[in-house]
Amino acid sequence: MIKLIEGGVCAAKGFKANGIRCGIRHNRTKRDLALIVSEVPAAAAAVYTKNLVKGAPLTVTKKHIADGIAQAVICNSGNANTCNADGLEIAEAMAKLVEKTTGIPANDVIVGSTGVIGQPLNLQPIAKGMEALVSGLSENGGAAAAEAIMTTDTVMKEVAVEFTVGGKVCHMGGIAKGSGMIHPNMATMLVWITTDCAISAELLQKALSGDVKNTFNMLSIDGDTSTNDTVAVMANGMAGNEKIVAEGEDFNTFMEALNTITVQLCRMIAADGEGATKLLECIATGADTEEAAKLAAKSVICSSLLKSAMFGADANWGRVLCAIGYSGADVDVTKIGVSFRSKAGTVEVCRDGSGVPFSEEEAKKVLLEKEIDILITLGDGAYGATAWGCDLTYDYVKINGDYRT
Amino acid sequence: MIKLIEGGVCAAKGFKANGIRCGIRHNRTKRDLALIVSEVPAAAAAVYTKNLVKGAPLTVTKKHIADGIAQAVICNSGNANTCNADGLEIAEAMAKLVEKTTGIPANDVIVGSTGVIGQPLNLQPIAKGMEALVSGLSENGGAAAAEAIMTTDTVMKEVAVEFTVGGKVCHMGGIAKGSGMIHPNMATMLVWITTDCAISAELLQKALSGDVKNTFNMLSIDGDTSTNDTVAVMANGMAGNEKIVAEGEDFNTFMEALNTITVQLCRMIAADGEGATKLLECIATGADTEEAAKLAAKSVICSSLLKSAMFGADANWGRVLCAIGYSGADVDVTKIGVSFRSKAGTVEVCRDGSGVPFSEEEAKKVLLEKEIDILITLGDGAYGATAWGCDLTYDYVKINGDYRT
Repeated sequence: MIKLIEGGVCAAKGFKANGIRCGIRHNRTKRDLALIVSEVPAAAAAVYTKNLVKGAPLTVTKKHIADGIAQAVICNSGNANTCNADGLEIAEAMAKLVEKTTGIPANDVIVGSTGVIGQPLNLQPIAKGMEALVSGLSENGGAAAAEAIMTTDTVMKEVAVEFTVGGKVCHMGGIAKGSGMIHPNMATMLVWITTDCAISAELLQKALSGDVKNTFNMLSIDGDTSTNDTVAVMANGMAGNEKIVAEGEDFNTFMEALNTITVQLCRMIAADGEGATKLLECIATGADTEEAAKLAAKSVICSSLLKSAMFGADANWGRVLCAIGYSGADVDVTKIGVSFRSKAGTVEVCRDGSGVPFSEEEAKKVLLEKEIDILITLGDGAYGATAWGCDLTYDYVKINGDYRT
Repeated sequence: MIKLIEGGVCAAKGFKANGIRCGIRHNRTKRDLALIVSEVPAAAAAVYTKNLVKGAPLTVTKKHIADGIAQAVICNSGNANTCNADGLEIAEAMAKLVEKTTGIPANDVIVGSTGVIGQPLNLQPIAKGMEALVSGLSENGGAAAAEAIMTTDTVMKEVAVEFTVGGKVCHMGGIAKGSGMIHPNMATMLVWITTDCAISAELLQKALSGDVKNTFNMLSIDGDTSTNDTVAVMANGMAGNEKIVAEGEDFNTFMEALNTITVQLCRMIAADGEGATKLLECIATGADTEEAAKLAAKSVICSSLLKSAMFGADANWGRVLCAIGYSGADVDVTKIGVSFRSKAGTVEVCRDGSGVPFSEEEAKKVLLEKEIDILITLGDGAYGATAWGCDLTYDYVKINGDYRT
């Protein structure tokens, strides 16, 4: 059984965190530098963006966890440290600052940066802030870290669960930053996850790589795959369970816990998409293959036209069919059905590829809610998939029309 | 030499057109029904959307021009006649109404519909309007037809050229409707082209299929591939040139004329994209393959983030690099260069994958213009490509938040 608990990345035993404002961008007032540390070295795994343009921190992180071990995450917001000539040097220096102030070896440090691309990242405010950052590390510091990695996010995103492996109570928690340039491609955005469950680095990577295919890779805010997408997990084993080293019941429980964390974070990121007023969840069923279900669900979630219609609470289901039609999924159009669902009710709008009469008033009521499910049936096949996204609003344009200033 | 002239689809000898308001949507006041006829049967060719969800008119048109001959186009706006149980019946009935009122056989009639998907198309207003539509056919009716096929378009789109084949002066003209749900996939949107040049149906299809790959397929307003995309050409041979039946100099001239028409229409459609304030043209050069150039240019044009930045006249070139990075093009990131150009000047912002110092003030001046070229160099290869798009604005969201009412 997976139980939701408080504490974010500090819910698991042996993890402390902190977040401070060190002043990476002069015109911002929020925290901009986060640190998460484990009491002991932890098994580590990560997945990264498939964008060919990659942030320098990704290269450094990849190198540092090549041995399957990490003990800290340092992450700044306000600057992505991407497309800068001195990027690698700066990212390495961030890890070295952690070594200098905590004693954790630089090559056990995961480095993350998020913010504007192509502007040099000044190390000075980070160096100046390290003492305060480290001295403030605490078991109650999860929220401060979650806040420090936010960019245009309007709410912090943290979640934690409790679960049992081999009779031992384990914990897992995660924080994420959204909220634009999100269309993960075989990888994801910035997510830091911690757990005290003992698991080998190899199995940890297997769990993570498997999970993101159905979670972060099924999420889109705006169709733009970021240059800095990273999800990393540290598992420090302090729960005392027998280490998971093979697939089986314990591994399945671990996967379930991880999936609970990642689905929650996906929903939080989608709901807080840049400018978003609504969380959209497209649930595809009846597909002949998993691929068809995924392609169709994700295509619907990505359609600018459908996203705009959802903003306007307009039951324009033709756009759902249109998006399925160009998704690349091999589907029989004459079998497609569409319903809109929210806590205000469910309205069927299309059956067998053609419209069915429905009450516009009823549909409006359903679509005026904050969380909308778009239910699509693709036939009588056995496969399904879920994708998450948000509506397209004036504020998305406003936020992104002048992001750098 | 290709010379721009007036007249749209009536510029070519033997073509008449008209557009009227027959009342397909009660709350609209603009013309909504267009007819284009040729004095004599014409060679015909067309390309269609690859969306699996296809408007009924496409099926009917495909059948009617299977023999390579057409003599008329009837096209309504306000309703796409798509995802309706009686769609095929209605589309056939539109062709039969043309036969009844003009004598042109129904199976030589191209049928088009554009507008909202999934609402039954009422034949009655069309039937009632036919007499006025036909009696008003004229050699000056190109503009009325161009207006009648508009949906959310704010300007009509027509263009015509004069060229010489085998010593004979030929003419070609086209009209198009935008302006949302535009992301042609191996096909295009609603475009009707006429020419008096004599060419076999086979070569006409070859010319059209070849051309759209570099024109309409390189255009995107919002990433949504329409269900009703169609481009059709009628060539009635009345210019008196020796019929083009093989590749060679005459065919090349014909291709050049066609390309002039289609590029102009692409630019017009992009500039009038839903809510757009700016025409964006992304010109990629230095690629190792044509495919890489096309992928990169189109990806830049499609990025919601870059489109929003262009709306805000913000030289956020990191988003250009990001979009190239996830485009799927096999490029060396360290060789990418980016400049922004308009009639106010050119500003280089990125060289060898990293930023170069530039004047923000200068860049703002360049980006405040109405037509922006985004110049990307991908290396020292020999291939290039051009893609067309527009900025993403508040009005796009407004228009599409409540399109149906």
